[in-house]
Amino acid sequence: MPSSIGSDEKETGRIEAFSDGIFGIAITLLILNIKVPKAADIHGKASLLQALGAQWPAYLSYLNSFLTVLIMWMNHHKLFRHIRRSDHVFMILNGLLLMGVTIVPFPTAILAEYMHTPEARTAAAVYSGSYLAIAILFYVMWHYASHSPALLAHHDDRESVAAISRQYHFGPLLYLVAFVLSFVSVWASVGMCIALAIFFAFPGVTKTHAR
Amino acid sequence: MPSSIGSDEKETGRIEAFSDGIFGIAITLLILNIKVPKAADIHGKASLLQALGAQWPAYLSYLNSFLTVLIMWMNHHKLFRHIRRSDHVFMILNGLLLMGVTIVPFPTAILAEYMHTPEARTAAAVYSGSYLAIAILFYVMWHYASHSPALLAHHDDRESVAAISRQYHFGPLLYLVAFVLSFVSVWASVGMCIALAIFFAFPGVTKTHAR
Amino acid sequence: MPSSIGSDEKETGRIEAFSDGIFGIAITLLILNIKVPKAADIHGKASLLQALGAQWPAYLSYLNSFLTVLIMWMNHHKLFRHIRRSDHVFMILNGLLLMGVTIVPFPTAILAEYMHTPEARTAAAVYSGSYLAIAILFYVMWHYASHSPALLAHHDDRESVAAISRQYHFGPLLYLVAFVLSFVSVWASVGMCIALAIFFAFPGVTKTHAR
Amino acid sequence: MPSSIGSDEKETGRIEAFSDGIFGIAITLLILNIKVPKAADIHGKASLLQALGAQWPAYLSYLNSFLTVLIMWMNHHKLFRHIRRSDHVFMILNGLLLMGVTIVPFPTAILAEYMHTPEARTAAAVYSGSYLAIAILFYVMWHYASHSPALLAHHDDRESVAAISRQYHFGPLLYLVAFVLSFVSVWASVGMCIALAIFFAFPGVTKTHAR
Repeated sequence: MPSSIGSDEKETGRIEAFSDGIFGIAITLLILNIKVPKAADIHGKASLLQALGAQWPAYLSYLNSFLTVLIMWMNHHKLFRHIRRSDHVFMILNGLLLMGVTIVPFPTAILAEYMHTPEARTAAAVYSGSYLAIAILFYVMWHYASHSPALLAHHDDRESVAAISRQYHFGPLLYLVAFVLSFVSVWASVGMCIALAIFFAFPGVTKTHAR
Repeated sequence: MPSSIGSDEKETGRIEAFSDGIFGIAITLLILNIKVPKAADIHGKASLLQALGAQWPAYLSYLNSFLTVLIMWMNHHKLFRHIRRSDHVFMILNGLLLMGVTIVPFPTAILAEYMHTPEARTAAAVYSGSYLAIAILFYVMWHYASHSPALLAHHDDRESVAAISRQYHFGPLLYLVAFVLSFVSVWASVGMCIALAIFFAFPGVTKTHAR
Repeated sequence: MPSSIGSDEKETGRIEAFSDGIFGIAITLLILNIKVPKAADIHGKASLLQALGAQWPAYLSYLNSFLTVLIMWMNHHKLFRHIRRSDHVFMILNGLLLMGVTIVPFPTAILAEYMHTPEARTAAAVYSGSYLAIAILFYVMWHYASHSPALLAHHDDRESVAAISRQYHFGPLLYLVAFVLSFVSVWASVGMCIALAIFFAFPGVTKTHAR
Repeated sequence: MPSSIGSDEKETGRIEAFSDGIFGIAITLLILNIKVPKAADIHGKASLLQALGAQWPAYLSYLNSFLTVLIMWMNHHKLFRHIRRSDHVFMILNGLLLMGVTIVPFPTAILAEYMHTPEARTAAAVYSGSYLAIAILFYVMWHYASHSPALLAHHDDRESVAAISRQYHFGPLLYLVAFVLSFVSVWASVGMCIALAIFFAFPGVTKTHAR
């Protein structure tokens, strides 16, 4: 029935549009965490350049959060290429994942505010812990979809599905390491989060070229 | 006339895209209500973890508002599957509903700010009252659409329309109970709002699976 | 050439999507102007209900701005049904119109802040003056499009084009009256803005029903 | 294979939708940098009109940033008409470009805050430097795409590709001049940024009319 396939695609299309909107807004709101030094505050004490330089933790956490949300969006995008239909449970799992994405500005601001204070480890734990939670939500959503034949696309090749499954198995484990590292060293934990963003950005560049 | 059907679908498509954008932005702005404790404020007095923990009313109201807006979006989505065309009145009713959705961050912030103060009942009344207003707007919009043959889709089955109508009859009544409860007990009212979000999330999971 | 028509439609589609996004964000940001009274500020002095009630100018300006932006979106939507293609000048005119729309939260906040102060007339002049500027931008954009045969849709009926032209002639004149009224009476000016929102919302409901 | 072309177009469509969302949100957030003067602050000291007039650097930087982001979006839009497919590298380059776009509100706020202070040159350097970075990102992304036959559209004419390449070669050079000028004169640098926005807005209006 071509018409029913058409209406299915439209439905998934609206879920994707809604998700894209939320990813786009969450990633754009991150900049609001970087404050402009007030002219009155720095007058006579420091130059604007020094005041801007002192905010480096805000830039670092911004950069990492932007890249991580960007890569989440790319993975979300790739995941939905295998999805043909949705159901209530899938929409709720996707909604919980989007909740995780919209929360990102909050741990990002915490890391920026506390990275050069004695509370830096707690901040790093909140930061890496948030990404751990999102990685788990990605895993759960994909696990549900990849085990529901009604949701998967017909043109689906088993190999790519298995490749995504492997990647999503590792995600939570690797972010768990970043989370545990935060109790040992702030830099090890934050560095691991940055490394993971890069790792998830290039899961076999050459292979996906032709897609 | 296939061409006129095509232009109709495009029109509804733009209403849905506009609505999706507003749902997506409103749901993402909710996180701005959760404030990062200032490093200077907590220095020496409490740990970051304690300061974060003290904000639990903000997390609770965030969580409930996120889930409720998510479910509103899912219902809006489901409702529009039955809509083929729109007219001026329908666009204005939809616009008023979207106004209700964009207002949600405001009562959410009020509940977060006042939940552990003597004014908690007023806050709970504002909170549940806002959802009552949105439930009424959903009812009015659906009532208008389901009684306008020109708006309903041809492929429409009477049973799903009747099922949505039943659900939308109950919505305002149930939120009225949550609103009245706020004058008796804050927790009863907030708890009922949470229960209703879950109730509207699963209006027969098994049945809608194949759609 | 069907393929070239297809690529034209795609182009207009992206302009509409970009415009819809901006309309949706501007209309959702309006709620940020309504502040939650701080629990510490009202403690002992007034009840939460009194504090919320004292903010009525914020609700009034919010309500009017929301409805006006909603109606602008509806008119933008209707206008684009007659547009088949775009060119550089049209895209820039549309961009300037969108700039007018994104500015709306600013005069709305000014009106809310100053409505019950001696500066209320200046606030009303800024408020109605902003809508005057947007009405002029709508007029200029439509004037340009309706005089460019390359931009208008083939299936276009001259009567609807002329009807829109008539409406867009009156828009700037009527908002000019609201602007001039602000120097005489705040309420006359704000009341006229509300009346115009309603007038533009229903430009012949019965006729457009079948569209 | 028509079906594979269809899925390719859908993919690019979602990248464009995500990009449009980010452009739209970034351009709308700019207004949040323009503050409403507090009624309590100006009481007795100045009129509202004077207080609004004193904010002219905020309006100027807003205006220029809005126009520049609008023109970036138009160029992004034009660029994607030549793109048929995407790959991982292209998505990351596009993501970095979008990061540049979302950052714009930050240098805009810096210029507004410091334009009438002794730090104005630093502010102008940050402002023009940000646009220089974005121009470089545009150049790199287009360079990558125009040298990847798999990414370019079939219906692509070599002349338009070469025209875009020429324009994108000049972009970084011209913004480099604006950046260097900031160390000599604030007004020369800001003026050049405004001139460049206008230059990029009209890269041959007559030629692109028929497209």
